[in-house]
Amino acid sequence: MEYRKIKDEDEDGAGAGADIEGLRGKAFSSSAVSNMPPVERSKWKRKTIVTLALTVLTSSQAVLIVWSKRAGKYEYSVTTANFLVETLKCALSLAALARIWKNEGVTDDNRLSTTLDEVSVYPIPAALYLVKNLLQYYIFAYVDAPGYQILKNLNIISTGVLYRIILKKKLSEVQWAAFILLCAGCTTAQLNSRSDHVLQTPFQGWMMAIVMALLSGFAGVYTEAIIKKRPSRNINVQNFWLYVFGMAFNAVAIIIQDFDAVMNKGFFHGYSLITVLMILNHALSGIAVSMVMKYADNIVKVYSTSVAMLLTAVASVFLFGFHLSLAFFLGATVVSVSVYLHSVGKLQR
Amino acid sequence: MEYRKIKDEDEDGAGAGADIEGLRGKAFSSSAVSNMPPVERSKWKRKTIVTLALTVLTSSQAVLIVWSKRAGKYEYSVTTANFLVETLKCALSLAALARIWKNEGVTDDNRLSTTLDEVSVYPIPAALYLVKNLLQYYIFAYVDAPGYQILKNLNIISTGVLYRIILKKKLSEVQWAAFILLCAGCTTAQLNSRSDHVLQTPFQGWMMAIVMALLSGFAGVYTEAIIKKRPSRNINVQNFWLYVFGMAFNAVAIIIQDFDAVMNKGFFHGYSLITVLMILNHALSGIAVSMVMKYADNIVKVYSTSVAMLLTAVASVFLFGFHLSLAFFLGATVVSVSVYLHSVGKLQR
Repeated sequence: MEYRKIKDEDEDGAGAGADIEGLRGKAFSSSAVSNMPPVERSKWKRKTIVTLALTVLTSSQAVLIVWSKRAGKYEYSVTTANFLVETLKCALSLAALARIWKNEGVTDDNRLSTTLDEVSVYPIPAALYLVKNLLQYYIFAYVDAPGYQILKNLNIISTGVLYRIILKKKLSEVQWAAFILLCAGCTTAQLNSRSDHVLQTPFQGWMMAIVMALLSGFAGVYTEAIIKKRPSRNINVQNFWLYVFGMAFNAVAIIIQDFDAVMNKGFFHGYSLITVLMILNHALSGIAVSMVMKYADNIVKVYSTSVAMLLTAVASVFLFGFHLSLAFFLGATVVSVSVYLHSVGKLQR
Repeated sequence: MEYRKIKDEDEDGAGAGADIEGLRGKAFSSSAVSNMPPVERSKWKRKTIVTLALTVLTSSQAVLIVWSKRAGKYEYSVTTANFLVETLKCALSLAALARIWKNEGVTDDNRLSTTLDEVSVYPIPAALYLVKNLLQYYIFAYVDAPGYQILKNLNIISTGVLYRIILKKKLSEVQWAAFILLCAGCTTAQLNSRSDHVLQTPFQGWMMAIVMALLSGFAGVYTEAIIKKRPSRNINVQNFWLYVFGMAFNAVAIIIQDFDAVMNKGFFHGYSLITVLMILNHALSGIAVSMVMKYADNIVKVYSTSVAMLLTAVASVFLFGFHLSLAFFLGATVVSVSVYLHSVGKLQR
């Protein structure tokens, strides 16, 4: 059941990692930060905080997944958990909005009511994720679960390409090279003795993996486009609408995939403390992803996820007595150099 | 007997690969080449030719090694073959000089006679290689042969560091990143299911591997310093003196390691057609290395060796029906990006 996580890791893009531009600023030009005008500095601070939050949440999320597997508690229905994650995110957005309304009053930018024109694009990411999650059930006819983990690194490339095409933002030559390295490094870090099976993936498996990577990348980039379209709009309102449709589409998923199980065993069948912690974690990291989309971008999100993956592996050594492979060290080296090159590449422009 | 090659691969630095700066010129700025002044263009041509020659020779060398292993012909004494390689290189240098003397007459730059001051540094690389080769017999107490192949990638880092320190040539930030990637990429490409053993290498093994990498890097960089010290000096004269001391030190190695075998079974015991081809190939690639040192540098040599390693693996698929692993594709990707970054990094300075 490795692939049936509470929520697919990239569904709400649960990614994390150091804010690489933030770190660059810190490590290489701390004077540049202290010389920033106050507005710039507060933006830079906010970006760093949301990215670090995302890194920590994603790392602990992966640790929870390992923990839940070890405890053997994975018998709940994943679609109901996903639905609860969306509901919790929705509730948290509303709670944040209630505080804002109380303190600042209701304005055009933080009112919940919206136009059809504004809201009409919000179902698209949720719909894309639904299609992707349904496809996920079919790809396992061609690829096994560890193979799918490897193929998921195609998301990195698809996100970069779609970021360039849809958001029309440019990456420098060195940053593109860094992005290819990020993909190769993450894959290397995940190599084990059975990874070579992936090369025997039939053509249909490759096609589905590529389509799923494109769907996931498109959903992420599209979410960024929606959130950034109106920068002054309060992020909690934007989140509320994203999550409402998330709830709706996850309700559809419950009906398609787990209707019988829920009817026979109940909605909360198989839930445990770990399940509750995972739902809480996914909700918080989902919100952190939205924040990163608002104040940083998909590229930072992808780097965050990758760095979080490495941190998780290191944490697992201490928590679960895992052993790190030579491939992990090599992959981690390549990812680190990639982070460095991304920040160096930026400065050249 | 994997480690007892005719000559250790980095003894005369048998490296190869495309001239990355040459390729960069070709692929990214062909107009820059055609706009070069004739002298520059002829230099660029010479550099490209010697580097390509080195790539092809190193690749075919590795193929010969695989072939000889498959044929099970590895029963000759390695030190005698090394001695014959040095002798052949010496003879070829003399033959080239004889032609030059006939065509151009004897000048200060191409006369064989030399001063003690000039010749006194020539034994140093040969002596360093002798020490390194003797150490090689002791490191196998701590590391197995495939593990040693992995650790040999430390040579890449040591060459870069010593190139910077001894020759005082600067690499840009991006070029340093590229160099770390080259090391990680080459190691990744060589990973197999038993590679993790390397991580269990005891402290003494690591120390010896680092010392051997430093010896090998130092010998390479020192050879470049000797050859470049007097640019107008004919390369064949410089080679002649290098190889004379190579012969002398390999004669010492015969006495230390294979005296009994040579006395009892004869100097040419166990030689076959493949042995002769390997000696020929090593002699030619040794000369190509000297040429690369003269007209390019150790960095180009290291990149050449790495690219040749990848080419060999691809060639082995066709020649011997080898299978390429996922790790190989990932490593090859990282090495390719490294080559690209090295050339891009250069332009930024």
